[in-house]
Amino acid sequence: MRQGRVDIGQRSETVHRANLSAIVRGLHERGPLSRSDLVALTGLTRSAIRALVCELVDAGMVIEEPALRRGTPGRPSPIARANPRRAVVLGIEIMVDSIAAAIVGLGGVTLAESRLERTRGSLSPDRVVADITELTESLLRRVAVAPIGIGVAVAGVVRRSDGLVWMAPNLGWAEVALGERLTEALGLAVPVSIANDADMGLLAEHRRGAAVGVDDVLYVSGEVGVGGGAIIGGRPLMGVAGYGGEIGHMPVNPGGIPCRCGSTGCWETEVGEGALLALAGLPPDAGREGVEAVLREAAAGVPTAAAALDHVGRWLGIGLAGLVNILNPQLVILGAMHGRIHATVRPVMEVELDRRALRAPRESVHVVAASLGVGAPARGAAELAFEPLLADPAAFFGSAALAPQLASA
Amino acid sequence: MRQGRVDIGQRSETVHRANLSAIVRGLHERGPLSRSDLVALTGLTRSAIRALVCELVDAGMVIEEPALRRGTPGRPSPIARANPRRAVVLGIEIMVDSIAAAIVGLGGVTLAESRLERTRGSLSPDRVVADITELTESLLRRVAVAPIGIGVAVAGVVRRSDGLVWMAPNLGWAEVALGERLTEALGLAVPVSIANDADMGLLAEHRRGAAVGVDDVLYVSGEVGVGGGAIIGGRPLMGVAGYGGEIGHMPVNPGGIPCRCGSTGCWETEVGEGALLALAGLPPDAGREGVEAVLREAAAGVPTAAAALDHVGRWLGIGLAGLVNILNPQLVILGAMHGRIHATVRPVMEVELDRRALRAPRESVHVVAASLGVGAPARGAAELAFEPLLADPAAFFGSAALAPQLASA
Repeated sequence: MRQGRVDIGQRSETVHRANLSAIVRGLHERGPLSRSDLVALTGLTRSAIRALVCELVDAGMVIEEPALRRGTPGRPSPIARANPRRAVVLGIEIMVDSIAAAIVGLGGVTLAESRLERTRGSLSPDRVVADITELTESLLRRVAVAPIGIGVAVAGVVRRSDGLVWMAPNLGWAEVALGERLTEALGLAVPVSIANDADMGLLAEHRRGAAVGVDDVLYVSGEVGVGGGAIIGGRPLMGVAGYGGEIGHMPVNPGGIPCRCGSTGCWETEVGEGALLALAGLPPDAGREGVEAVLREAAAGVPTAAAALDHVGRWLGIGLAGLVNILNPQLVILGAMHGRIHATVRPVMEVELDRRALRAPRESVHVVAASLGVGAPARGAAELAFEPLLADPAAFFGSAALAPQLASA
Repeated sequence: MRQGRVDIGQRSETVHRANLSAIVRGLHERGPLSRSDLVALTGLTRSAIRALVCELVDAGMVIEEPALRRGTPGRPSPIARANPRRAVVLGIEIMVDSIAAAIVGLGGVTLAESRLERTRGSLSPDRVVADITELTESLLRRVAVAPIGIGVAVAGVVRRSDGLVWMAPNLGWAEVALGERLTEALGLAVPVSIANDADMGLLAEHRRGAAVGVDDVLYVSGEVGVGGGAIIGGRPLMGVAGYGGEIGHMPVNPGGIPCRCGSTGCWETEVGEGALLALAGLPPDAGREGVEAVLREAAAGVPTAAAALDHVGRWLGIGLAGLVNILNPQLVILGAMHGRIHATVRPVMEVELDRRALRAPRESVHVVAASLGVGAPARGAAELAFEPLLADPAAFFGSAALAPQLASA
């Protein structure tokens, strides 16, 4: 059919670029792969894979290495891996008590990283922009490759489209145009993407942690505030404006404790760091060390500490039951404070979950502690910054930003 | 590049079938379209559209009609529309007090429908299967076209993969293999898909009602139980096993009223029909007429009725605030009982929503009553049954199930 062929002709470049994307994404997300692995991964023919990989090797994005003989019959299949220095990104995290940055190369290799510890409450937008500028300059001097993108994870409610931080109560921020300010301050002429810290922690766990290969995941990340993120059917829960996932402000006890957000009885008021410290009789600014102290005291049999953890564990189960009923996830990952207390509160949390989640979704779900620990949001932010390259690597082949690295690659 | 062409060659039939799907889906979901509309919708060339439409006309799926001159310059573009008798499906709904079935033709035209009113509590699985068999036989005699698929919406928690109804407390069902039983009883040798009633009400609103073109929607549908469904980023929230959307069992008042599910203080215990009737001093089995009576009494100034609606409206706002924070929807649709009380409870509901939802997601969302009314779940179930045909119409061209209709089409 002639008209059909015209149409297909128009699409052939699109198909070609999509195939390059599948290979680069495969190597970035899964690590080194043989040509046979790539055939299995993409469904393309062996000869198509050979040609596409050659193209990526010519562009410097992929390095092919001779295969090791592994005792299997037939010709050994060369191993392709992403070239981490051909394309690097900057991943940044802005938490309530530290600022961290990492330079991550294609394939997910961290080439350099640095963290500045900061006092809670001291992080004005000006201070944060200055800290990030300083961290970035020092890391880029060490790595000497210009980044193709910058991702920033911030403990606040973020509008993804333009990087506006609507509200970051734990930083004391409201309506900070962080995307614009960083673009200007860093002067790197590459896209700056801003996202919520829990969303980025989840992205990191999904790409490189506990949730690899899992399509329905809920991530809970509590410290001063309780944030969250979800992957639903393999895609991040964004909502219409990118604000989705604010699970800390689900009302679980509307006659309870006033929340910083203006409501009463939000989940955060029962399971946040503040609730745990108050119940354990510690000052509200005791922070992460305070939480460690509560865990130590409970282990030593101090009743107030044990009761405080019991309370938080029980309400953790109550809120999770609701979220499990709403989202039917396969996996719940507890990050930050909730990851640290998980082993201790697990029995009481599971009792509430068993009692309050419907049997069917309860049977589908496992609750685990986060696997990546500190720095997960920065790693997720780096993944976010890689997204345009992974979606269309060919668009970056001739990019001016990449050209200087060809010599050093 | 030779290898690239081999790959594209392998994909050309896939592309062709995807293009047929885009056209059939467009005509089914949007109604009659001119060739120019189809060019705009698909991004294909005019000549490609002409050939693809011809192919669909030859297969009997599409009818092309001469265009009317509409005063615009240039040659008028013929109008294509879906042929409703070329492919029909059966959409069924099993609610607590009625069973309904409809035969829906391609393009969304209801060709015949029927409803059996039933007493609450009388609907055993045997009774329901017998009722559906009777309804189906009578409708198929009237329409005289064999269906290509059957969709069933049921007020319960459903495993999509095999149509197992895990739990339908308001019907008194547990682990009913409804998919299998209907397949056997109807003997029509076509796929039977079972889904939750709220999910199907939402699908109907998304295809043909208040949510057309909206990608982030929450649907709340309360009667005896409170169910829900969501569309997130344009796709239904399913969860890992299809149980997602059980918003009625979000704990909002864990020290409150025991719920039929075994938990305490689920949203359903505060905003369900039972709560409204009890607060208004009516018997729990007063049902839909009871709700109408409460609305009439409140309008006439009866204080207990007004207070009951106030209570339900306030808790509706509290729960919606949590869901708006979690999902950041653009639209919330209130179906069934909540649609009927919406106009009355709106002020008190909006006060809680304003107070308890975070400002950013609050500003993105509108709450409206459902537009389709009774029968929305059956219409949604019919849409579900059309899905395989819409995804790959070419697979149905030569189907034995369709062949008999070619003569009558």
